Amino acid sequence: MPYRAPVEDYQFIFDKIVSMDEVAQTDLFAEASPDVTDAILTEAGRLCDDVVAPVQRSGDLHPAALENGVVRASPGFKDAYDQIAEGGWVGISADPEYGGMGLPYAMCTAVNDMMSGACLSLQLKPLLSQGQIEALEHHASDALKAAYLPKLISGAWSGTMNLTEPQAGSDVGAVASKAVDNGDGTYAISGQKIYISWGDSDLVENVCHLVLARLPDGVPGTKGISLFLVPKYIPDADGKPGVANSLHVVSLEHKMGLHGSPTAVMEFDNATGWLVGEKHNGMACMFTMMNNARLGVGVEGVGVAEGAYQKALEYALDRKQGRSPIENGTGAIVDFADVRRMLTTMKAEIFAARSIAATCAVALDLGRATGGADHKARAAFLTPIAKAYGTDVGCEVAEMGVQIHGGMGFIEETGAAQYYRDVRVTAIYEGTNGIQAMDLVGRKLMDGGEVAYRLLEEVEANCEAGRSLLPELANDLWAMAESLRETTEHLVDQGMQDRFAGAVPYLRAFARVLGGHYHLKAALAEGGTGPRSVLASFFIKRLLPEASAALAHAREGAEGLYALSPQDLGAA
Amino acid sequence: MPYRAPVEDYQFIFDKIVSMDEVAQTDLFAEASPDVTDAILTEAGRLCDDVVAPVQRSGDLHPAALENGVVRASPGFKDAYDQIAEGGWVGISADPEYGGMGLPYAMCTAVNDMMSGACLSLQLKPLLSQGQIEALEHHASDALKAAYLPKLISGAWSGTMNLTEPQAGSDVGAVASKAVDNGDGTYAISGQKIYISWGDSDLVENVCHLVLARLPDGVPGTKGISLFLVPKYIPDADGKPGVANSLHVVSLEHKMGLHGSPTAVMEFDNATGWLVGEKHNGMACMFTMMNNARLGVGVEGVGVAEGAYQKALEYALDRKQGRSPIENGTGAIVDFADVRRMLTTMKAEIFAARSIAATCAVALDLGRATGGADHKARAAFLTPIAKAYGTDVGCEVAEMGVQIHGGMGFIEETGAAQYYRDVRVTAIYEGTNGIQAMDLVGRKLMDGGEVAYRLLEEVEANCEAGRSLLPELANDLWAMAESLRETTEHLVDQGMQDRFAGAVPYLRAFARVLGGHYHLKAALAEGGTGPRSVLASFFIKRLLPEASAALAHAREGAEGLYALSPQDLGAA
Repeated sequence: MPYRAPVEDYQFIFDKIVSMDEVAQTDLFAEASPDVTDAILTEAGRLCDDVVAPVQRSGDLHPAALENGVVRASPGFKDAYDQIAEGGWVGISADPEYGGMGLPYAMCTAVNDMMSGACLSLQLKPLLSQGQIEALEHHASDALKAAYLPKLISGAWSGTMNLTEPQAGSDVGAVASKAVDNGDGTYAISGQKIYISWGDSDLVENVCHLVLARLPDGVPGTKGISLFLVPKYIPDADGKPGVANSLHVVSLEHKMGLHGSPTAVMEFDNATGWLVGEKHNGMACMFTMMNNARLGVGVEGVGVAEGAYQKALEYALDRKQGRSPIENGTGAIVDFADVRRMLTTMKAEIFAARSIAATCAVALDLGRATGGADHKARAAFLTPIAKAYGTDVGCEVAEMGVQIHGGMGFIEETGAAQYYRDVRVTAIYEGTNGIQAMDLVGRKLMDGGEVAYRLLEEVEANCEAGRSLLPELANDLWAMAESLRETTEHLVDQGMQDRFAGAVPYLRAFARVLGGHYHLKAALAEGGTGPRSVLASFFIKRLLPEASAALAHAREGAEGLYALSPQDLGAA
Repeated sequence: MPYRAPVEDYQFIFDKIVSMDEVAQTDLFAEASPDVTDAILTEAGRLCDDVVAPVQRSGDLHPAALENGVVRASPGFKDAYDQIAEGGWVGISADPEYGGMGLPYAMCTAVNDMMSGACLSLQLKPLLSQGQIEALEHHASDALKAAYLPKLISGAWSGTMNLTEPQAGSDVGAVASKAVDNGDGTYAISGQKIYISWGDSDLVENVCHLVLARLPDGVPGTKGISLFLVPKYIPDADGKPGVANSLHVVSLEHKMGLHGSPTAVMEFDNATGWLVGEKHNGMACMFTMMNNARLGVGVEGVGVAEGAYQKALEYALDRKQGRSPIENGTGAIVDFADVRRMLTTMKAEIFAARSIAATCAVALDLGRATGGADHKARAAFLTPIAKAYGTDVGCEVAEMGVQIHGGMGFIEETGAAQYYRDVRVTAIYEGTNGIQAMDLVGRKLMDGGEVAYRLLEEVEANCEAGRSLLPELANDLWAMAESLRETTEHLVDQGMQDRFAGAVPYLRAFARVLGGHYHLKAALAEGGTGPRSVLASFFIKRLLPEASAALAHAREGAEGLYALSPQDLGAA
């Protein structure tokens, strides 16, 4: 049973859960009719199943390696990447003017999810290019766009994000890389950057780095940082990779997972770069890229969860162990109640996280297509939830996948352990999940909770609509939504430290309530009976109650949290 | 800040939380006075800090390897093991008649915990010998005892457990290895065993395998299995390792973690073995060994959690990132509310799991020293909780340790990832945590809940005692204990499938309530103010509420769990 991309799940979500029809009614996305999206999902699914999934183990067993200054990708990656590029999958949502498909970001999100389940290490490469394409579309000069976008969108070249430095991780404002104006329209960029995913590889002709650096007159902190495009090879007069730029890969990290994705330390030594956007406005430009990248990482988590789930299900259906505890069972361990509990939890969590991500993507699309502030605010609110919950689900589902495999889960040959190791970083990069939660209770509640309450009104309207068909589920969900509203009201009145103290459990509770909402919607869509209704019942009755504990935690605030001194914690 | 064994924590737990004084009042353990236990804990702590912890990274970086049929241990392991053996630490609880220290199992548990935090791969070796020593003490003939116990207790030889076969994992009754009576007091053992931890190594002169196999007249299932002692080298007339036995290591597994601990596939080919215990009674003999091994694995989880916690704390105290959000802060990331939340959660969970393990160990000791059925039943009840909760805490704390490290957590150099990889197997081996939970709601509630209710009476008495000093904590805990009682009453009335469906959340809730109980006890012991009271408040107000959701989950039963067919789950 090889990996099968969740095409049907996305078809259902687009059809019944999110407002994909509304997206297709906009001028911008008029082409995204159901038959088009169905065809594209099917085609992408085939690529993931037949081309991407087969290189998953190769990336783990034969890590990308730095050889004579060049990063050699894992065996099989070149061919798979070429097929991704040739199919146009790098530029699904990119501007058709430069060769993109111009499809909604919801489509791109679905494909990113499906591809992450096939091979996360490889999927990360197009994901990074997508972020760079978006940043250039929004902020680069026409000349830069013309020179770089067609290459990036076709996949001939690829993009990276160069934010982090040893002293500047979550605190991006501490960036120390320098930029000096060369007086000829270019800048000299110097500094060391770390954690640069796909910082180099032999898969593409050219690697384009988006680098945060400080001009001499840049003030300290985030407001003095500018963004530069720094290619590995400077395009020549014909637009082809020309002279080698003054930058190189210092080393690759030895990581717990994601071995197929080279993580580079990059050194820029008076490298030639071009300003993207306004001077000192690099953070804003970077955030254009990062917001969608956050949603992209969220579905990386969901995708890996899907891969881990399918592998665990296969094992559970195959592995015989003891007498079946049920009549007419399969005889395999899937018959055991606790194995069922784990599998059903995995499946229910994936659907919840996937629906949240799709909702966020649709809000982004509607915001872009209509300019509506409501849609944009909703997308901004859902982004940290989609990122943190999607990747938490990735970690938890991969963890259960290992557990279902028993001893075999700890043995690398099965591949269950690879999902567990690979996915772990998704809860860390693109802003740790703690940072996401701080963003949610900080910036995203700055509106006094307005967006949150609108989402909760939707949840409650759904409960009202479902009350006659599924009264118990509707009532349970309604009650939890009310608790969430009360806690939101409480948090809005608190200072930042009190909000931050409970940020992670608050985000978790919000995701649980939204998850219950989409599960109920799915159940109602099939008339209240059938597998989606069973899954909804499982989620709402067995998993949703956790939100109550998380909300209690979130309300506790910072009091007592600093009462333990570092010495009390165990500092020497 | 190198690893420091939690000596003071154990001194506090022995002094204030568990009935160590009661243990010392028995004839059997009269020597275990507070000053003796203090001295031994201190000495063991020194060994762990100075000798064992320094080889932790070596085991990961230089895995044990099979070379010309012999397993070569990781660099440094030989010297560290020799010092463990010379200090008498293998035989802490072993019979003094054969060279053991004869100390309570509570002491052994404390040392196992401390040593697991130092280096789990190496600690596993003495742990396995301890299990074998115990099985032989209880079930072997005097001749076997005389020949093997002194060697095993001194650490000159080591022991392994050979249960699992490819088709017989959680279902031990499916064992297919064969034993044939040689007619000379020995048996010919044949078969293949998998997952044999420390199945061989160059650390010791001889490796003694306890092997489950079936005699020709053994009935199918667990009741037809016998236990045999099968040494790598057959002792000669002087008791020294003599002729090589007919067994060998086929291969070592490539595992996600615990690289320093060789996991062997063993082949026995008419190997000479000696019967341990009665014929066809092998499972009962093995359970003598496995029950304590389960507690031992529980504190493996707790120990790794301690190591991961200390490493994360060190990083959090050291890593500067952004402006401190608090006045008079350290300036490092420990000042951030979410980092505090994680660190405090880790510390609170470790104390809870450690206290449960210590309580279980003391019950074992009192059961052994007094023969009291109450103590034995309590130990039996607490064993699956100590195993599953201890190792779950190990996994969760190691996971948070990675998160606190941010990007560095995913890089192998820091060692945070090693804890995360190493500890994962503890939730699987010695009976998966799902099996532990089934044991709890199945066998351990067979008494109609009697032991559970007695534990809850203790919890509630503690609440009564604390009501004047810490009314809020006492009330919260009391209420949750009542919910647990009601759920227990409910489960006792259910059939097995309904119990099993909620077994894991039920076990979790029971552990949470007990954890709250020991935290409250600790707070009361310091008069209701001070760091232990702050930690108790954190646990009871922020973590204990999760028990409520877990109990709701546990009460749901099997209904609906089988409503999703394998096809609904995604089977092809």
